[in-house]
Amino acid sequence: MHTPQAAQANDLRTLETPVLVLDRQKMNINITRMRGQLARLGVAFRPHVKTSKSIDVARHTLGAETGPITVSTLKEAEYFAGFGFTDIVYAVGITPNKFQHVFDLRARGVALTVVLDSVGMAHALAAYAAERDVSLDVMIEIDCDGHRSGVQPGSGELLPIAQRLAAGKLMLKGVITHAGNSYSCKSTEEIAAMSRQERDAAVSCAQSLRQHGFPCPEVSVGSTPTAYFADDLAGVTEVRAGVFVFGDLVMGGLGVVQPQDIAVSVLTSVVGHQRKKGWTIVDAGWMAMSRDRGTSRQRVDQGYGVVCNLDGEILEDIVMVDANQEHGVIAHRSGDPRKSPDFPVGTLLRILPNHACATCAQHDRYHVVDGGGLAVNAVWPRFRGW
Amino acid sequence: MHTPQAAQANDLRTLETPVLVLDRQKMNINITRMRGQLARLGVAFRPHVKTSKSIDVARHTLGAETGPITVSTLKEAEYFAGFGFTDIVYAVGITPNKFQHVFDLRARGVALTVVLDSVGMAHALAAYAAERDVSLDVMIEIDCDGHRSGVQPGSGELLPIAQRLAAGKLMLKGVITHAGNSYSCKSTEEIAAMSRQERDAAVSCAQSLRQHGFPCPEVSVGSTPTAYFADDLAGVTEVRAGVFVFGDLVMGGLGVVQPQDIAVSVLTSVVGHQRKKGWTIVDAGWMAMSRDRGTSRQRVDQGYGVVCNLDGEILEDIVMVDANQEHGVIAHRSGDPRKSPDFPVGTLLRILPNHACATCAQHDRYHVVDGGGLAVNAVWPRFRGW
Repeated sequence: MHTPQAAQANDLRTLETPVLVLDRQKMNINITRMRGQLARLGVAFRPHVKTSKSIDVARHTLGAETGPITVSTLKEAEYFAGFGFTDIVYAVGITPNKFQHVFDLRARGVALTVVLDSVGMAHALAAYAAERDVSLDVMIEIDCDGHRSGVQPGSGELLPIAQRLAAGKLMLKGVITHAGNSYSCKSTEEIAAMSRQERDAAVSCAQSLRQHGFPCPEVSVGSTPTAYFADDLAGVTEVRAGVFVFGDLVMGGLGVVQPQDIAVSVLTSVVGHQRKKGWTIVDAGWMAMSRDRGTSRQRVDQGYGVVCNLDGEILEDIVMVDANQEHGVIAHRSGDPRKSPDFPVGTLLRILPNHACATCAQHDRYHVVDGGGLAVNAVWPRFRGW
Repeated sequence: MHTPQAAQANDLRTLETPVLVLDRQKMNINITRMRGQLARLGVAFRPHVKTSKSIDVARHTLGAETGPITVSTLKEAEYFAGFGFTDIVYAVGITPNKFQHVFDLRARGVALTVVLDSVGMAHALAAYAAERDVSLDVMIEIDCDGHRSGVQPGSGELLPIAQRLAAGKLMLKGVITHAGNSYSCKSTEEIAAMSRQERDAAVSCAQSLRQHGFPCPEVSVGSTPTAYFADDLAGVTEVRAGVFVFGDLVMGGLGVVQPQDIAVSVLTSVVGHQRKKGWTIVDAGWMAMSRDRGTSRQRVDQGYGVVCNLDGEILEDIVMVDANQEHGVIAHRSGDPRKSPDFPVGTLLRILPNHACATCAQHDRYHVVDGGGLAVNAVWPRFRGW
């Protein structure tokens, strides 16, 4: 199912730190859980590959060589197109300086769908397409929760966009929304309510479009929290989710995953100590962890990450309390130096990230282990940029 | 002086956003200012290349093809060694899983110096070197401000480390410190005081070592703020500084640079609007800006960055107030929608970063312009990772 890799002679103890570690067994459990949930709900799955940016992870996620995916950059679209993926939704609002690139991808046989949320952009794109006598699938973005982009349901902006698309050569493929505020929910009940709100916003807009004679075959929703806590997605045709594949501490704080299910960690070495302060200094700083501090807004602030031993077992209440570019500071959550464990210099530790998308983006490959083992059974490349 | 590049036919208006833009003219002014300051102080310059990770920027900084540099990763050491650099200080505490790589670089003719701050690490390194009958230059890290790593001056830890090095095959090259807390100073007077504290910590430790018969030729200090506000570096032999080359909003908040001197920005396009909220949505999110929010701890919080027009002119009080992975939210600082400018979809803007090291690390090349012009006169690659 995944790209064959030459067997690696090394294990985690032979690598130069810091490096990114992926526990394939945990990842597969996360994938099985999400696919089971979506099968139960009876909706199609269009995983977001922005979290992993890896052909190997995408194939595991889909359980197939190719399939429908969501991307956040045209570079992701290019990369996956190179592996034969043709059904791609580019879920960030299109801009004029990307029009030609999109049409180039279409000309190469990639059924790329773009997203927009204004008459102005619909007009610009339609004019560009008409000049070149080409067509394109477009989804209208809906704002379901005031989080970011999108047309407000019931605001009167929806139909003029659909009309402008229809007047041009552009095909209205459907509506798309993302309940980004689900990341800020305080309980699983709130997430379940957010899931209904996300569904209702998208479905009501699709119905409005259809009532006015516009075909609107697709109704696309999704985020990892709302996907897991949805109980009924009637009217929705597909779900997008990305971060579920690895999980992270923000998802842990939401109750969406358990910390021990988090599949990615950063392997680091102990450089030294400031014993009076109870600090252990390690060689993973914010360059290896990212500056993401998503848990700082949650009930339990996990600093720059939760510390595990080399086997990946969580060390209770030991966190990365601060980070410089290539230095991390590890201490007991309480700040009490007497509670800090004594890690000799050179000790290897693994740090669970606040936000898997951000931490993985700092690395160019995954060192793949299985089920807590130390053997590196594969090295999967990942990419980044635009 | 810099790597010759083929002339680019494009200008900033032809690029797919987001991209990183470097104003070479501003960079050169920053470099001239720092070199002038260090010449006035009579100390050698060992620029830190971790900010730019670019051969082109390093050569501009040194005004020469090669020269003494500071690195934060062995990948930086490898990269610059490949361009003929031989005088390199690796300023992050060494760890055992990097010993062999360090000796490999030495065997290839790179005078690489490593840093440590404990008897334990000195012992491990000395044992490794003795087994292989090789030597290495080592600097002892001094903690001048309680910020991070290093031996406390006067703590009694210094001499045992020097003794352990001398008993092995390791050469004590000197002492090294970094006043990281200078980034948190509230006034330029505080920075000047921090500069004296940084100098005194390093010089006193060097004197102590010499009094006990250990040669300690080098006394290395540095940070951009303390370098700029130092008035007397008697006893110091070299200064390291990195972020000065570009400047950023954190340095702006410290009064170390003026915002209009910041040489790097992220070019972005307007995707859409949430007009009732006064939001403009752009296609540069935290993936393009980084999650660094260094100004959140300063007097003026600049959000994810200060917004400029395409020509690089700062738009008063317009900042990136929030960021998702590939979306940024731009608004008036006050949050008042009536004060938000109306940028049509497709408008190009440039965002100044909180922290140049973090933002540049999200990109793999610099699009080089000169003095506010839109022509891209060079594309300089940069690298990352370990």
